[in-house]
Amino acid sequence: MTDEELIIKHFENDGYVKLSGITLVELTKEKAVASAKIGKEHLNANGSVQGGMLYTLADFAFAVHANFLHPATVTQGGHIQYIRAAITSEITATAKETVRAGHNTISEVIIRDDKDEIVCVCNFNGFVKDIDKEILRKKYE
Amino acid sequence: MTDEELIIKHFENDGYVKLSGITLVELTKEKAVASAKIGKEHLNANGSVQGGMLYTLADFAFAVHANFLHPATVTQGGHIQYIRAAITSEITATAKETVRAGHNTISEVIIRDDKDEIVCVCNFNGFVKDIDKEILRKKYE
Amino acid sequence: MTDEELIIKHFENDGYVKLSGITLVELTKEKAVASAKIGKEHLNANGSVQGGMLYTLADFAFAVHANFLHPATVTQGGHIQYIRAAITSEITATAKETVRAGHNTISEVIIRDDKDEIVCVCNFNGFVKDIDKEILRKKYE
Amino acid sequence: MTDEELIIKHFENDGYVKLSGITLVELTKEKAVASAKIGKEHLNANGSVQGGMLYTLADFAFAVHANFLHPATVTQGGHIQYIRAAITSEITATAKETVRAGHNTISEVIIRDDKDEIVCVCNFNGFVKDIDKEILRKKYE
Repeated sequence: MTDEELIIKHFENDGYVKLSGITLVELTKEKAVASAKIGKEHLNANGSVQGGMLYTLADFAFAVHANFLHPATVTQGGHIQYIRAAITSEITATAKETVRAGHNTISEVIIRDDKDEIVCVCNFNGFVKDIDKEILRKKYE
Repeated sequence: MTDEELIIKHFENDGYVKLSGITLVELTKEKAVASAKIGKEHLNANGSVQGGMLYTLADFAFAVHANFLHPATVTQGGHIQYIRAAITSEITATAKETVRAGHNTISEVIIRDDKDEIVCVCNFNGFVKDIDKEILRKKYE
Repeated sequence: MTDEELIIKHFENDGYVKLSGITLVELTKEKAVASAKIGKEHLNANGSVQGGMLYTLADFAFAVHANFLHPATVTQGGHIQYIRAAITSEITATAKETVRAGHNTISEVIIRDDKDEIVCVCNFNGFVKDIDKEILRKKYE
Repeated sequence: MTDEELIIKHFENDGYVKLSGITLVELTKEKAVASAKIGKEHLNANGSVQGGMLYTLADFAFAVHANFLHPATVTQGGHIQYIRAAITSEITATAKETVRAGHNTISEVIIRDDKDEIVCVCNFNGFVKDIDKEILRKKYE
């Protein structure tokens, strides 16, 4: 199992991501991309994508990327700014690391709608535990 | 229909809150309280409550309270800090307004586990549109 | 030297707080209060208190309180929301801890103007190193 | 007077930036860069650059850039994450806009030390008032 496959397998156990219909699209050292097709179950009372759904997508993209780069990383804080109402058939989040130093990693996650317009700008910071990836590998092999 | 009933009816249309199994417990001028019983569908890959689920609960408590106090309020930003892993049968969020000035409202939302321990501290800021509550009322009566 | 005197003595070495004309007003287990008389050197190009000055006051109130409660605490993140333009002869910040768990402490800091109106709402999170207070005491006695 | 010269002239009236020894280094559509030589008056009680000084530098780089791109922009919120203790002879902040939509602008500001290492990651959001630049011009010509 490659390191990518291992992380993907691990995050398949995320129940809330599954419930939310979120899919991992891409995972490289440079970025993680996650997306979701939007249905009625993702909308708020005003008919646009619910703020928690947007946050959950961003948080997932960050978590997958940070844990791929630095196993294991625990999210300490998340910050989301809503720019536009998301009235769209799909949302896509791209997570990129800004910096890692010591036990901290900081990432920016941008969410775009189906017209490629930015709807949210997010920032996450994680605490890196620096565990041996082989511990995770044993769990899944 | 009272103002409370009107807001509750409006937020019953929130599809993602329904999907997430979140319920409004209390709504007064002082606070809004929302909670959720935790099942497997709310857990992350490590077995604790998923960060997006926690955020969604907090965001909902804020949105209900802010829209009750000041119709209509649109969330502009959310900030969540995770204090403890939430290993619990239930999570409860309490939203209280810190200040409103001009078109801005700022709230703090605290999430607690089933032992009444704080698991997250959240802050939200909303843009208050100051619409006539009767517009919303006509929609539902 | 009491614990309060020790912390106050330590923070007298903060050069930027001195440059900024910031004074500690109160320090108890419940809160720390800091304030500054406003002069031209604290104003931005539009004539209200500069955003960095407001932040510095809040950060100082947090740092003193957190280090008094839990020596030594290092600030990891700060978040400030500006509610009103601060056109005032004085600003006062009150820091209160929301929660401490493990190595994390979270505080809210509220800044008020000379009419007792809230001008900023701030949140800080610190990493608690849990050092022995006596190490600091030896330095100053 | 060019647009750049106009904004620079306006921000020369910032008293706290002057007190803090902060200088604008570069201003283009792509970015604003500000820096400060570090003296004892910028240090905290532990001998590294004070958190408020770091924030003030970042806030200034954001404010200059946002007001250059979109006059006039008022800062609504700032978020700073400290990555490393800044033990350095100089600090440099680079502000870049992530997105503008409607009345909102979001920027990321990165602060580096004299070894070009990142010490802080900051995010700002501003409210764009969309005033006529000529109003500002009349004030200074």
